[in-house]
Amino acid sequence: MAKIGFIGLGNMGLPMALNLLKAGHTVKGADLSAARMADLEAAGGAAAGSATDAASGVDAVVTMLPSGREVAMLYLGDGGLLAAADKGTLFIDSSTIDVETARKVADAAAAAGQKMVDAPVSGGVGGAQAGTLTFMVGGPDADFAAAKPLLDVMGKTIVHAGGAGNGQAAKICNNMLLGISMIGVCEAFVLAEKLGLDHQKLFDISSTASGQCWSLTTYCPVPGPVPTSPANRDYQAGFAAAMMLKDLKLSQDAASHAGAATPLGAAASQAYGLFVGAGNGGVDFSGIIRFLRGAQQDA
Amino acid sequence: MAKIGFIGLGNMGLPMALNLLKAGHTVKGADLSAARMADLEAAGGAAAGSATDAASGVDAVVTMLPSGREVAMLYLGDGGLLAAADKGTLFIDSSTIDVETARKVADAAAAAGQKMVDAPVSGGVGGAQAGTLTFMVGGPDADFAAAKPLLDVMGKTIVHAGGAGNGQAAKICNNMLLGISMIGVCEAFVLAEKLGLDHQKLFDISSTASGQCWSLTTYCPVPGPVPTSPANRDYQAGFAAAMMLKDLKLSQDAASHAGAATPLGAAASQAYGLFVGAGNGGVDFSGIIRFLRGAQQDA
Amino acid sequence: MAKIGFIGLGNMGLPMALNLLKAGHTVKGADLSAARMADLEAAGGAAAGSATDAASGVDAVVTMLPSGREVAMLYLGDGGLLAAADKGTLFIDSSTIDVETARKVADAAAAAGQKMVDAPVSGGVGGAQAGTLTFMVGGPDADFAAAKPLLDVMGKTIVHAGGAGNGQAAKICNNMLLGISMIGVCEAFVLAEKLGLDHQKLFDISSTASGQCWSLTTYCPVPGPVPTSPANRDYQAGFAAAMMLKDLKLSQDAASHAGAATPLGAAASQAYGLFVGAGNGGVDFSGIIRFLRGAQQDA
Amino acid sequence: MAKIGFIGLGNMGLPMALNLLKAGHTVKGADLSAARMADLEAAGGAAAGSATDAASGVDAVVTMLPSGREVAMLYLGDGGLLAAADKGTLFIDSSTIDVETARKVADAAAAAGQKMVDAPVSGGVGGAQAGTLTFMVGGPDADFAAAKPLLDVMGKTIVHAGGAGNGQAAKICNNMLLGISMIGVCEAFVLAEKLGLDHQKLFDISSTASGQCWSLTTYCPVPGPVPTSPANRDYQAGFAAAMMLKDLKLSQDAASHAGAATPLGAAASQAYGLFVGAGNGGVDFSGIIRFLRGAQQDA
Repeated sequence: MAKIGFIGLGNMGLPMALNLLKAGHTVKGADLSAARMADLEAAGGAAAGSATDAASGVDAVVTMLPSGREVAMLYLGDGGLLAAADKGTLFIDSSTIDVETARKVADAAAAAGQKMVDAPVSGGVGGAQAGTLTFMVGGPDADFAAAKPLLDVMGKTIVHAGGAGNGQAAKICNNMLLGISMIGVCEAFVLAEKLGLDHQKLFDISSTASGQCWSLTTYCPVPGPVPTSPANRDYQAGFAAAMMLKDLKLSQDAASHAGAATPLGAAASQAYGLFVGAGNGGVDFSGIIRFLRGAQQDA
Repeated sequence: MAKIGFIGLGNMGLPMALNLLKAGHTVKGADLSAARMADLEAAGGAAAGSATDAASGVDAVVTMLPSGREVAMLYLGDGGLLAAADKGTLFIDSSTIDVETARKVADAAAAAGQKMVDAPVSGGVGGAQAGTLTFMVGGPDADFAAAKPLLDVMGKTIVHAGGAGNGQAAKICNNMLLGISMIGVCEAFVLAEKLGLDHQKLFDISSTASGQCWSLTTYCPVPGPVPTSPANRDYQAGFAAAMMLKDLKLSQDAASHAGAATPLGAAASQAYGLFVGAGNGGVDFSGIIRFLRGAQQDA
Repeated sequence: MAKIGFIGLGNMGLPMALNLLKAGHTVKGADLSAARMADLEAAGGAAAGSATDAASGVDAVVTMLPSGREVAMLYLGDGGLLAAADKGTLFIDSSTIDVETARKVADAAAAAGQKMVDAPVSGGVGGAQAGTLTFMVGGPDADFAAAKPLLDVMGKTIVHAGGAGNGQAAKICNNMLLGISMIGVCEAFVLAEKLGLDHQKLFDISSTASGQCWSLTTYCPVPGPVPTSPANRDYQAGFAAAMMLKDLKLSQDAASHAGAATPLGAAASQAYGLFVGAGNGGVDFSGIIRFLRGAQQDA
Repeated sequence: MAKIGFIGLGNMGLPMALNLLKAGHTVKGADLSAARMADLEAAGGAAAGSATDAASGVDAVVTMLPSGREVAMLYLGDGGLLAAADKGTLFIDSSTIDVETARKVADAAAAAGQKMVDAPVSGGVGGAQAGTLTFMVGGPDADFAAAKPLLDVMGKTIVHAGGAGNGQAAKICNNMLLGISMIGVCEAFVLAEKLGLDHQKLFDISSTASGQCWSLTTYCPVPGPVPTSPANRDYQAGFAAAMMLKDLKLSQDAASHAGAATPLGAAASQAYGLFVGAGNGGVDFSGIIRFLRGAQQDA
């Protein structure tokens, strides 16, 4: 069993840490919220005095932070985690951040004699609690091998996407495609409505034809065809529109810096920007069908 | 066995007519090309003197024409097919046309005492030859029931999408979604390339995740992951970009007249417009990845 | 002085007809609304029994109708205006309609021995009342010359854009550009707000630089810099968003049929579609800045 | 007369430095290219041993660098220009960079007891040589006042856009609008071509109507109407497409971080990305009309 420092005990981080505890690992947790640390202690974990403390004297450190800015601030510099931790500590950054920062931090980790993988997740809060997350992992083979047993505890599908930063790259490529296909499915339903074509009919046809996609057949944005989809519970998130917007922005920043043309990714990013800007950040991302349908018809 | 008039013996129409012959039906064919009619005769069919002749004295008429303009010209008016055919003739229009015209012609058919369904297809030339087309059918239940046995001969999946025009509606909704998701998949691969993420890795991840779609898992626009996809044979069509552009334009015209907002459908239509305008109309529609990647890298 | 039939006495048509009366012409008006015809009579005009009646026994006919559908219905066919009018009557269609229909009707007019120009306007209700409209005119030189004196009464700028349909072509090309540049100006102001750049500063800079455009310097979408712009009266139209959407749709239909790529025109059309769909059809088209800013900040 | 250090003697920087010399100032220049420094010496300037040397013992430092990365590297840190220069030195950064970095460097300058303004330019190489550049300046009033006399030597229009970073903000807002309106003008001409509307006719109409904009009336993207525009010399830059793409990307990065929705700015950025990606980076930005027209018609 490993000694693990866990930094960032939010809606995703806390249940992930609890699963590590359940598996018999020792977990020392750090978070800005004392309440969160109390929750961890109540489950048998320890509260660290600081992030640095959480990263000291442990076998592995897992971080779950809001953005690249926090990751860079926490990991780098003289007082940073990479400097504070014992040599050879394994760092698993499960935050979803920009590829550039992920690679910069990975280089610093190697230079500091630490092991490191970037391992962003998909699967949401539900997946974090059930331990069924998908981890997209970037880093050296040896570090991936070292991280795998811990990731298996927190997730179900663990994929090694290549070198440092490729976990982040895989996530933003996949989620850009997800955002595009979800809007595409919503547009198809909205057009069908206007043409007098029944939701279920379009579903029956496209789900077995060339229009088939996960956004249609697993996460259908209209009530009915897929009873488990958020559309059946008034678009209660699931995967919040604000999170999709964050991932789309990461994809557009990466595309801009890497010089990749992504016209539909850009249009999808703008559509979610307008949807979230209108106050729908907390709505499930499939709720954008209301925005496409027009606020009126929706009222 | 039925007496059938078949009008429009092109790349799609001829093999469809030949399958009707193989099934033992009598087929009288009309086409502007004598060579095409000769091909039909060689297979045991008859050459009609005109479209009107093909529609006279038969149980059913199948039409496979380029656009709504030709359909309206041929069906409507005093000298039109609906007037020339015996009362109670079954009309199956398998052309892909605008919903408005399809419904206008269907109303005229009913007024003229004819049975009619709109029944556009997907599956391409291969599906037409193999008799494995998908038919999306719009029309009254009785007319659908009457058309079903003939459609079963030419296709594998026959779906009743609702009243008149709904076959066309279903096709443009599905194909708009297809065009959007294909570009989305291409953008994801192009971004992955620029970020140093391997094609196969992205495929392995997204094909089992929320980015999964037919354009990725069945018709993958990069060589390798799906050996049967056109990307493995230099984007030899398959489904030509010019045909996708035609369907996207139909979707945008329908959306414009019906008052549906389709921002990504519009962007996809523009992207295919630029791709076809640059001389790629005959290339498979998945070849648009070259356009997104930039002419340079492609050269 | 000429005998004129005027068909369509709406917000634009009535003041145009009144200006013809003021200039001493005889005007016989037709409209579905008796009240509108009463207004014309009160000003010294006559109420026609029907559109056909209005077009009979006159020197010229002016039509101001909602769309190409109405124009085709009214002009064409055995009972149509072109058949009913005396040979050599001058037809001026000031409706804004699709180029295709405009050319079809012009051909029919020539075939019927009538003179005809398409002459859509810009300048709004204010321009119609003040007689300062801009007319974009398509048709033969002789017909343009015949129409010019009457157009001079109703407008200030009369441009001959070429053959039949070119008046419509000029208007949709100009208004597509207008819709695009207005959204562009709005986006620039919204970005400036978020970056802490003062509205007046951006105006002072761009109005004398490469960003200068009519939408900025004459019709500024934020209050202050241009006191006469609708932004200073809570976006009271002016030129309603629903009218801009109509013109953008005409431009996109024309582009689709003509095979022109207009990616920004398509995006602008979608943006106005969403804005109008959310219930803002009656708001001035510069009010789309509220939509870009997000409903929240606007509330 | 002032002692000035000038860092970055490229196509823009060198002529700007030469104008400072002509005005009687002392100029010590630094550049990676010895040839560039020789050109400066030939004109009576001095070659600095390094950027740090150029910034030492002078009244003012002007920097003209490719991007925010170079600016941050050169200005910040223990060995940076801000540390090396005498207290109270005036820094003028005329590079076009991201607002975030501009503000970060300005804060560092204030902390180091230096005066600083961000002062990006428009007007191109021609304006730099003629001393007719437009400077958009951000910074404290006192620092703007101190910089004004030197900017007057290098430019014609000097605008104070507000506090630190606002010079950059003004430039990207203006140039985003420029990129959008240029594509809008190109789309209008392409649509006009397809509809049989003459270039000159559209120009005559829109240049005096609501479609009027600088991209049309000063920099017309088709040959003829504006004899001085690059379209008349086969789109020889002027303002290269690659530079427009750079500014559009800066606008999109700023919009993404600031949370501003810019759907047309995003679409314009993608269009220029595709145009430049196809090998047209060196072509004038008005040459994008060829891309919209389709490579074929262009050949």
